[in-house]
Amino acid sequence: MNAFLLTAESTTDGIVERDFTVNGVPGVLWSPESGADHAPLVLQAHGGGNHKKHPAMSGRAAHLVRDCGYHVAVLDAPGHGDRPRTEHDERETAALFAARAAGEPEGPIVVRYNDHLAKLAVPEYRALLDALQQLPEIGTDGPVGFWGINMGTAIGVPFVAAEPRITAAVFGQHWPHVLAEYAKRITVPVEFDLQWDDEHISREEGLALFEAFASAEKSLHVNSGKHKELPRFEVESAVRFFARHLGRAVNASA
Amino acid sequence: MNAFLLTAESTTDGIVERDFTVNGVPGVLWSPESGADHAPLVLQAHGGGNHKKHPAMSGRAAHLVRDCGYHVAVLDAPGHGDRPRTEHDERETAALFAARAAGEPEGPIVVRYNDHLAKLAVPEYRALLDALQQLPEIGTDGPVGFWGINMGTAIGVPFVAAEPRITAAVFGQHWPHVLAEYAKRITVPVEFDLQWDDEHISREEGLALFEAFASAEKSLHVNSGKHKELPRFEVESAVRFFARHLGRAVNASA
Repeated sequence: MNAFLLTAESTTDGIVERDFTVNGVPGVLWSPESGADHAPLVLQAHGGGNHKKHPAMSGRAAHLVRDCGYHVAVLDAPGHGDRPRTEHDERETAALFAARAAGEPEGPIVVRYNDHLAKLAVPEYRALLDALQQLPEIGTDGPVGFWGINMGTAIGVPFVAAEPRITAAVFGQHWPHVLAEYAKRITVPVEFDLQWDDEHISREEGLALFEAFASAEKSLHVNSGKHKELPRFEVESAVRFFARHLGRAVNASA
Repeated sequence: MNAFLLTAESTTDGIVERDFTVNGVPGVLWSPESGADHAPLVLQAHGGGNHKKHPAMSGRAAHLVRDCGYHVAVLDAPGHGDRPRTEHDERETAALFAARAAGEPEGPIVVRYNDHLAKLAVPEYRALLDALQQLPEIGTDGPVGFWGINMGTAIGVPFVAAEPRITAAVFGQHWPHVLAEYAKRITVPVEFDLQWDDEHISREEGLALFEAFASAEKSLHVNSGKHKELPRFEVESAVRFFARHLGRAVNASA
């Protein structure tokens, strides 16, 4: 049994925000103020160096809550946000900054560090889903999606590979070295983003990870631009992807 | 001076449809019943074996007219629709059917036949644009887009490469052999569709054509599925692409 504790609640512009911990891991749940009963749920995972309430997380959640009427939840990843950083976190972060300063490839460090974090985070996300499905307004009968880019993909691909309750997922911008083996076990519809001029992830690496998904229905969105230049309109595309696969039409105001 | 003759006009569900000929080439112009003044214009080109009023053309046009308030025009390609077929058309079509029946690659025949048709069609599209910009409700000050997949790309890529009035284009599903050289001269924003399991165009060929565009802003949409299985939602994506680049917000009823 998971220890799920609500720690704060507020409502702004029609969105209910609830802070919680699940087995001590801090997270946030956003829900529509009305009509939330048994609405679909989307689990998000944030990018490296960010946290559960980073504007990328709260902004995507606002789309999903307002336009689709979904519940949306995010956890702080290990070593991120309100969670303690271990000596291992400090060492790997220092190695990443040193590589960046020296103009050396970041990939090998990010791949191994994210793999380490994913091994910790996957059971945390499973416990999160167990706990959220105990809430009467969510329950076990609604569809569940997953949305994570960058480090969110490093956590999400092994999570979705092992989690039959996830029925659609948006991933992107990571290397195939560790993740392709997990992706081969994923068969649900996938939308995958990559940047054509990514200075860290080569085109071949990005395409290899997309290719690895066993999903009969998968879409790849490539955009010109560097690693951090993923266009804002891909957020709206992901929202429409979830609306197609999890149900409930995108709101006219989208 | 081009000979532009209106031959029929009707209005259905808020869309005005006008048949015309420009220098004898038959075409159709769809416009919103109200608010059409100096609205953006999108030129479409149809796929091989189809014609200007094929449901793919009228369906896409209905989105652009209703959701964005644009004018949309299409010509019958040489040897297609209401236009006469030459001996050369008959010979190439027979060669294509023979290759298909024998299970031989269609690419070499399609590439050379579409190149032949494009050389005829490009000046026809230029004359079309000249003529439409003479209409008081279109004029020369509004932005102009181009949308053509399959043979529409074979015509559109050389047309847009030579036509500075086109400011955004949607292409897809063709080979790079002839078109990559033209694509290198295109710098306007491009959205490009390819099918990941296309039985005629290999992934490498599709990616090579996308790569060739010189556009600073370009997006590639890859979907699982065979040549004819381009998902319907790519139509809506293209409409949003034009709304971003030609102006006028996508209608809430989209």
